[in-house]
Order: sequence, then structure tokens, then C-alpha cells
Amino acid sequence: MNPSKIQHPTSKIPRRIGVFDSGAGGLTVVRSLLEHRLFDEIVYYGDTARVPYGTKDANTIIRYGLEALEFFNNFDVDLLITACNTVSAHALPEMRAKSAYPVYGVIEPGILALRRALPDTDARILIIATRATVASGRYQRELEALGYRRVTARQTGMLVPVVEEGIVEGPVLEAMLEHYFGDLEEPPDAVILGCTHFPLVAEAIREYFGGRPLMIHSGEAIVEHLEAEGIRGGGGANGLKIFASDNVEGLRAIAKRWLDDGL
Amino acid sequence: MNPSKIQHPTSKIPRRIGVFDSGAGGLTVVRSLLEHRLFDEIVYYGDTARVPYGTKDANTIIRYGLEALEFFNNFDVDLLITACNTVSAHALPEMRAKSAYPVYGVIEPGILALRRALPDTDARILIIATRATVASGRYQRELEALGYRRVTARQTGMLVPVVEEGIVEGPVLEAMLEHYFGDLEEPPDAVILGCTHFPLVAEAIREYFGGRPLMIHSGEAIVEHLEAEGIRGGGGANGLKIFASDNVEGLRAIAKRWLDDGL
Repeated sequence: MNPSKIQHPTSKIPRRIGVFDSGAGGLTVVRSLLEHRLFDEIVYYGDTARVPYGTKDANTIIRYGLEALEFFNNFDVDLLITACNTVSAHALPEMRAKSAYPVYGVIEPGILALRRALPDTDARILIIATRATVASGRYQRELEALGYRRVTARQTGMLVPVVEEGIVEGPVLEAMLEHYFGDLEEPPDAVILGCTHFPLVAEAIREYFGGRPLMIHSGEAIVEHLEAEGIRGGGGANGLKIFASDNVEGLRAIAKRWLDDGL
Repeated sequence: MNPSKIQHPTSKIPRRIGVFDSGAGGLTVVRSLLEHRLFDEIVYYGDTARVPYGTKDANTIIRYGLEALEFFNNFDVDLLITACNTVSAHALPEMRAKSAYPVYGVIEPGILALRRALPDTDARILIIATRATVASGRYQRELEALGYRRVTARQTGMLVPVVEEGIVEGPVLEAMLEHYFGDLEEPPDAVILGCTHFPLVAEAIREYFGGRPLMIHSGEAIVEHLEAEGIRGGGGANGLKIFASDNVEGLRAIAKRWLDDGL
């Protein structure tokens, strides 16, 4: 494939990209980007001083998204990924209007990944996400527009602190899955992991549903999406710089744990 | 009792007081203040746009505490209570240095309430609080200074979103209590509820420990403390104004539920 023939939404090949998240969760997206070596350099910014976003109002989320752009304006990024589903659900139009570089969210890529893997519109789709993402109705509307008829969206916000506590299996997680999903009559055919934290408990959720559903992971979906659009920058030197609005050492320690384990 | 004879830390009888919290939790303190009709008017401010504080760094918590003072400067309050234990643990000296009115935290009142109720320094004391409050060591140091020898401090931060989800009993809470306390060899004689959310699950925690421990509640403790200092203002008209940095309607709805139910 000849890169010069590909339609880029950006005028130059993106070498340095930004990844924005409300906190640490977006590192699951970084992990996918690093594994696929798409870019020379990743600048990660986690707004750990105000995390979580998923319990907050749309207007506040939009304001936080716009403030994040000010951070990335210092770094001359060629492209920005908002790894956070809550930001992707609420603030993309506003962020795109204010930025000089393309801004990608994770919702559309996730939906497209689902359609590729499971085109049957009779499939039962379970969206799990924060309260704000579910309330936005973004996933639901886009799935309905594609013809999916059996869509359930459920806010599962307590899974965020559970994952942050390091719990990825065991009785606390099981009680919580039963709390959230105990009333579902049938297991879903696919689960959209609509929050960056959830890939860390994807296996437990899959097992809860009898090992059956397809799991849609934002990090993998955005990588597929960028690759499908021919967006791949530099030699994949994979530099990663991590910044945070609070406790950057803590975030770097999580990055070391999550990323070193996985690479 | 003649109010003119009482030594006030403030030069005038406090009529309008401020209550500051990181979010909704401080309403448990407001509930105690309202029940005892100590003041004419309470101005409540929840920093819901940045909640929770308990997972954040000391410097960030201090900054947020100082920024809250700017809010209260608009309201001519005579006295401020920081209902949030995390703020009380980290930011009181800085807030006191910057404010023209007295600023009360909830940690010292809680400790004094414990000592009144359970003077035996051989008693087993369990402090439960956010990560930041436990990390500050404030409770532990003050209890040790009073001679208590058997003090355990445990961060139980996941209880915050659980309470916010409305869960105050049942399997999720039980799994979490077992997660946090399953390794304790003996039940405590007293539990300090070192976070404003925890009074809502006090009964479940007490039952988990066989119905035995004394539960120390910040709201009750601060009321006792103010009463012991003779601080009581106006006729107790009990006006309450609620403000928030995000989703004030949501906070007012919680206030209606928690306060109307309890009065």
C-alpha cells in the first residue's frame, strides 16, 4: 500500500500523536497503539485531578475536553485520540471545532469493529459504559442507525473504581456483575466495553456470560480504524510521554505495570 | 446558658455558616446540623465537578480547599465546616491561614467524640477512610497522641461509589466489606467513619462486625463539638442553600432524598 495514495484527514503523516483521557484508563488504548507500532511518539495526558468524568454533566465534560486541547497545544501533535468514551460521547464536535489537527474518538471505531465482526442485526448487543456515556445515547443511536434491533445499554460505573483498586476477578467483581447483569434474560452476543477501564475485566465479564460474547475493545477498535484509514506515522519508534493534572508519578507507575506486563 | 459569656472563636454569633464538601457526602453532616438546629442558614458547596478528592494528591486537595474559600467569600459566612474528611486531613492549616472566619474540620471532633464514648486506650479502633485521608496519617497520629495503642487504618475508597449508587445493603456491599475487613482477626470496638459517605452504610458495617462496635459519625461529632464550644447561632431557622460546581440539580435531588427522609 502506497501511503501517498491514501486520503488522510490530516495534511501530513502523523508522527507525534496525543492521547487524552480522564485518568489512567486510556492507557489500555495506548497499549494497543504501542503493540501495533503506529506512531513515533505518543503524548498521553490524563486529567487525574478531575477524574472520573463519567459521573459528570455534559457541559462540564465539554469544558474539560476543550481545556485538554490547551494542554496538547504545547506539544505540536499531528492527531489526537480521546481515549475516554465519556469525552468521545459528549465533546468531539466542540473539540474538533477548536483544534488544528484531527480529533478521533473511540465510539465510532467501536461500532464499526462490531459491525465487521457481527453483521447480523438480530444479534443482542450489550453496551456497558459510564452513566454519562449511556445518557448521551451515542452508542444506542449509532447502533440503531445500522439496524441493530436488540441493544441494551447499561451504566456500570462502579467497575471503574473496582478496576482502579486492582480487582479483576473474585467475589467483589462477581457480586458487581450479578448486580448489573443479573436481570438479563439472555446473555448478549457482543459486549461493547464502552469505558477504557473495562478491558481489564473483559475476561471476567465474558466468563460471567458463559464465555460466549464477542468483546469490543476501544483500543483495538481505534487501531483497526486508523489502519483502515491508512493512518500510520513515522517508523513506529514508540516513544511515550506521560503527563497528568494530578499525581503524575502514580500514573507513570500504572503505565509501567499495565504496559510492561502487556508488551 | 448566656451566649454573651461564651468564648467564641469567632467575634460574632455565627448565623450563616458554610459547609464545604467534595461532593454530596457532606450532606450527612448537614443532616446532623439541621436536626440540631444550630444555625439560621447553611450554605452548602459541593465540588461535584472534581469529586472525588480521596484518590488525589495532597497538593491538589489543598488547592481545591483554597479555591472553595473563594466560593464562600461571596456569601459572607461566619464560620465554615469542611465536612470532607479528606480536606480536613490535608488542607485545614492552609484554609485557616487564608480565611477571615473560623474553619472547622471533622477529624478532631471525631477523635474527641471517640474519646468521650470509649476512653479505654486498649480499645481496638478501626479507621475507615479514603486513600488520601489514610495516607495523611492524621487520625492515626491524633489517636496515638491520646494513648490509643490498637489502631488500624484502612482505605475503603470503593465504598464511596457504592453508596453513590444507592447500595446500602446486599451482596455487593457484603463482598466489599469482606474484601476490606476479611483479614481482621478480631472485630473492632469502635469504627471511625472517616468519610462523609460512610454513615449511610454504618449499619451494614456494624452488622458485619457482629453488631458490636461503636460507630463514630463526623456529622454527629461536629455538632457535639460546636455545642461543647458553645457555638450556636441565631434562632435555628434552618435555611439551606445548595450549590455545586457540576450538576447542581442532581445534588439538590440527593439533598431532598437524604434530608427529607431523615427529618
